[in-house]
Amino acid sequence: MDKISIGLIGLGTVGSGVVKTLEKFENINISKIAVRNLAKKRNIEGLDENILTDDPFSIVNDEDIKIVVEVMGGVNPALDLIKTAIKNKKHIVTANKELLAKYGDELYALANENNVVILYEAAIAGGIPIIMPIKTILAANEIFQIAGILNGTTNYILTKMDELGVSYKDVLEDAQKLGYAEADPTGDVEGYDAAYKIATLASLAFHQKVDINKIYKEGITKITIDDIKTAKELGYKIKLIAIANKTDDGRLDIRVQPMFVPMENSLSKIDNVTNAVLLNGFPVGEIMFVGAGAGEFPTASSVCGDILAIAAELPNTLTPLPMMRTNNKNQAEQIDINETYNKYYISIKAADNVGVIGFIGATCGYNNINLENMLQKGIDKDGTARIIVITGLCKEEHIRRAIKEIQSNNSIKEVTSLIRVMENANKE
Amino acid sequence: MDKISIGLIGLGTVGSGVVKTLEKFENINISKIAVRNLAKKRNIEGLDENILTDDPFSIVNDEDIKIVVEVMGGVNPALDLIKTAIKNKKHIVTANKELLAKYGDELYALANENNVVILYEAAIAGGIPIIMPIKTILAANEIFQIAGILNGTTNYILTKMDELGVSYKDVLEDAQKLGYAEADPTGDVEGYDAAYKIATLASLAFHQKVDINKIYKEGITKITIDDIKTAKELGYKIKLIAIANKTDDGRLDIRVQPMFVPMENSLSKIDNVTNAVLLNGFPVGEIMFVGAGAGEFPTASSVCGDILAIAAELPNTLTPLPMMRTNNKNQAEQIDINETYNKYYISIKAADNVGVIGFIGATCGYNNINLENMLQKGIDKDGTARIIVITGLCKEEHIRRAIKEIQSNNSIKEVTSLIRVMENANKE
Repeated sequence: MDKISIGLIGLGTVGSGVVKTLEKFENINISKIAVRNLAKKRNIEGLDENILTDDPFSIVNDEDIKIVVEVMGGVNPALDLIKTAIKNKKHIVTANKELLAKYGDELYALANENNVVILYEAAIAGGIPIIMPIKTILAANEIFQIAGILNGTTNYILTKMDELGVSYKDVLEDAQKLGYAEADPTGDVEGYDAAYKIATLASLAFHQKVDINKIYKEGITKITIDDIKTAKELGYKIKLIAIANKTDDGRLDIRVQPMFVPMENSLSKIDNVTNAVLLNGFPVGEIMFVGAGAGEFPTASSVCGDILAIAAELPNTLTPLPMMRTNNKNQAEQIDINETYNKYYISIKAADNVGVIGFIGATCGYNNINLENMLQKGIDKDGTARIIVITGLCKEEHIRRAIKEIQSNNSIKEVTSLIRVMENANKE
Repeated sequence: MDKISIGLIGLGTVGSGVVKTLEKFENINISKIAVRNLAKKRNIEGLDENILTDDPFSIVNDEDIKIVVEVMGGVNPALDLIKTAIKNKKHIVTANKELLAKYGDELYALANENNVVILYEAAIAGGIPIIMPIKTILAANEIFQIAGILNGTTNYILTKMDELGVSYKDVLEDAQKLGYAEADPTGDVEGYDAAYKIATLASLAFHQKVDINKIYKEGITKITIDDIKTAKELGYKIKLIAIANKTDDGRLDIRVQPMFVPMENSLSKIDNVTNAVLLNGFPVGEIMFVGAGAGEFPTASSVCGDILAIAAELPNTLTPLPMMRTNNKNQAEQIDINETYNKYYISIKAADNVGVIGFIGATCGYNNINLENMLQKGIDKDGTARIIVITGLCKEEHIRRAIKEIQSNNSIKEVTSLIRVMENANKE
C-alpha cells in the first residue's frame, strides 16, 4: 500500500494524541512534525525525533506531504501556514476554532479554488462527531437551531457551584489547580471560546457567512450562588449556552450567554467538563450529541477521523469528500441582541417596602413586559429583600429600559442579575 | 446538472417521508417507485403517479437507476431484490434492520464484489446519525462497548409504567391505541427489533461477523410495577438495553435485556419513544447520540442522507464512499449468556419466616455469589414478604443454579424477577 504522507504542525497535547493514535494506521505516514522548541524532551513512544523541525513552512512547502494537520492554535502564524499549504494543493485538517471563526470563509474559498478540503471536526466539541454528521448524513435537513454546551471549563465551574454551593471565585481557583481552567481564564469564562465554536457551527448549519464580531457574548463571572439556588427552586439549571437560531425571515440570532435551562431539557443534565450539541431540524427533529469537548485523546479522535477520511478517498478520486466542502456565498443577517425576544430571570435587591413589588410590576407593565412569576425571597438583617422576577417573552430593549427605570428608584438597592430563560420548545 | 436516478421500493410511512424530503434536491430524480397496491390513494404532494409500479424487479433491473432505496421491510422479497440490484451494479440504501441482521454479511460481500455500497443509517436508531459517524469520523477508534435504547415502543412502555405506576398490560393497551405499539407487539416487547439493531451495530463496531441467533434476548413482558418502584428506591431506572461488549480476549458479549440502569448513567434519562446510543472507545472516550428512533421524517432524514452521500460522489469517482464499505472476514466468537458475569437484582416472595433471609444468603454464598444488598419490603396480609437481593458481580450459571435452589425451598413462594444491573463504569 502506498503510504500517504502527512505533516503535523504542533506537538502539544492534541499533537501528541494524534501521533499516538495514528501509529496503528499503516496507510498513514507522519513525515514531518513542526515544534516550537527542538530541544524539548518529548515523551512519546515510537516518535522518530529526526522528523521534528522548528520550521513549519518546511512542512507546508513539502512536495510529498498531501495532508497538513494544524494543531498549534492561534491565528499567527497558523493563518499564513494554512494559506500556503492550500496554495500548494494540500488538504488541511485543523483543530483551530479561533482561526476558523475569524478567517474560515476566506480559507474555505481558497480551498475550493485549489480543489482541496479543510476539515475541522476537532475544532468544535472535541471528540463529539458533529461537523461531519451535519455535512453528510444530515445533509437532507433544514436546520432551525443549534444549541450547545461547548465550553468545558465554564460547565465545570457552574456544575461545582451548584453541587457544592461555593462561589464562582472559589470554584475557579479549584478549577485552575485541577487544570480545568487556565491561569488567565478570560477566553473561557467570558465566552470567547464558545463564541468561536458557535460561529463555525452556525455558518455550517445555516450555510451562511457569520461575522464573529456580531455574536452576542456574555460570560459566567457574575453568576451568584443565589442565582443558582433560585434556578433550582424554580426547576432550572444555569448553563453557559451557545445558541444559534434561524428566524422565520431567515435572519440569524447567534449568542453565547448563561441561561436558565429547564430541568426537562437535555442540556440541563450535561455536567462537569462534558460538552453537548443539540440540533433541531427537519426532517430529523431534535437530536443531541454528548461527549468530551477537549483533552488529548478525544480531540485526537476527531483529528485522526478527518485525516483517515481524506486518506481513504485520495487514491481513487481527484475531488475527495465533495460533501465536506464549504461554499457559503451569502453573508448572514445577524440580529442585534436589542432586537431579540426572550424570557428573563431578574434578581433585585430592594428595601422591604410595601410599594416595591407594585412599582416593579408597574414598570414592567408599561414597558410591555408580562410577568410569569414574581416572588420575594426573605429579608436580610438590614431590611433588604430579594425580589425574583420571571418574565414572559419580551423584547431585549424593553427589558433594558425597564431595568434602568427600576434601578433609578430609591427603594431599589441593586438589580443583581439578569439572565435569559430558555424556553422549553424542545420538550417531548 | 445531470440528475441521478433513484428507484424507491416501498411507499409506506418511511417511503412517503423520503419522497417529500427529496423533492427539493435538484440533483436527485426518483424515477420509479414500487408499491404493493397501485389502486391505493396516495396523499403525497407533488407525487407523479405515473412512476408507480407494482413490479419491484422493474426497478432493480432498470438500467438508468443508479441507487435502489429499499424501504419495504422484511426478508422476502427484499433480499432477492437487493441481490439483483447489487449484481446490476446499483448502490443500495436500505432501512431494513431484519434483513441486515440476518443477511448483512452476504450482502456486504456481494456489494464489494460489484463495487457498490450498501448504506443503512435508517435501519438503526431512525434519525440518529450513528452508522456513518462510526465508519468515518470515528474510524480511528477501537470501540469497546456500544449500549443503547434502540426500541421506542418498549422505552415508552417502561417510561409510562414508571410515571403512572400502571402495569405492563395496561400501558401496552394504551400504547397500541396511540400507535406506539403494534397489534402484535412481539417483535418489540420480546426484544427482536432491538436484537436486529444491536447485531448490526456490534458487527460494525467490532469489525466482525455476528450471528443473530447467538444474541441473548430477553423482553420486558415480565417487568412488574414492584420492580420499577424498587429500582427507583435503589437509584436505578429499568430500561431495555441492547448492549455489545468486546472482552479483553476479543470475544463479543451481545444481548438485549431489561437492566437496572444507575440514575447517573445517561441512558437512564432517555424517556418515552426516544432512542439513544452510547459508545465507549479509544481515543474518543464515551460519547452519546440521542434522537427519534422511528417515524416518517426522522427515518427519512437518514435514508436521504445516505442517498445524498452516494449522489455527491458518483460524478467524480468510480469507487464512492470507500469508508462506508464493510469487509468483515472473521466470524465473532460470541459468549453464551451462562458464561457471562453480571450484577443482579432478584425479587423473591417468601413466607415471613425467620430463617428465610439466612437461607437465601447461604444459598448465594455457596454458589459464589456475593451480596451487595438484601432487604425485606413489607409483608402482605397473607404473611408473604418480598425480599430484594442485589448481588455483586457473579457468573450467570451460578445465579441460575442459586435461583433453582432458592425456589425449591418450602418457605419460598416464588422468585418473581431476575434483572441484570448495569455497572456504572461510565460514570464521570
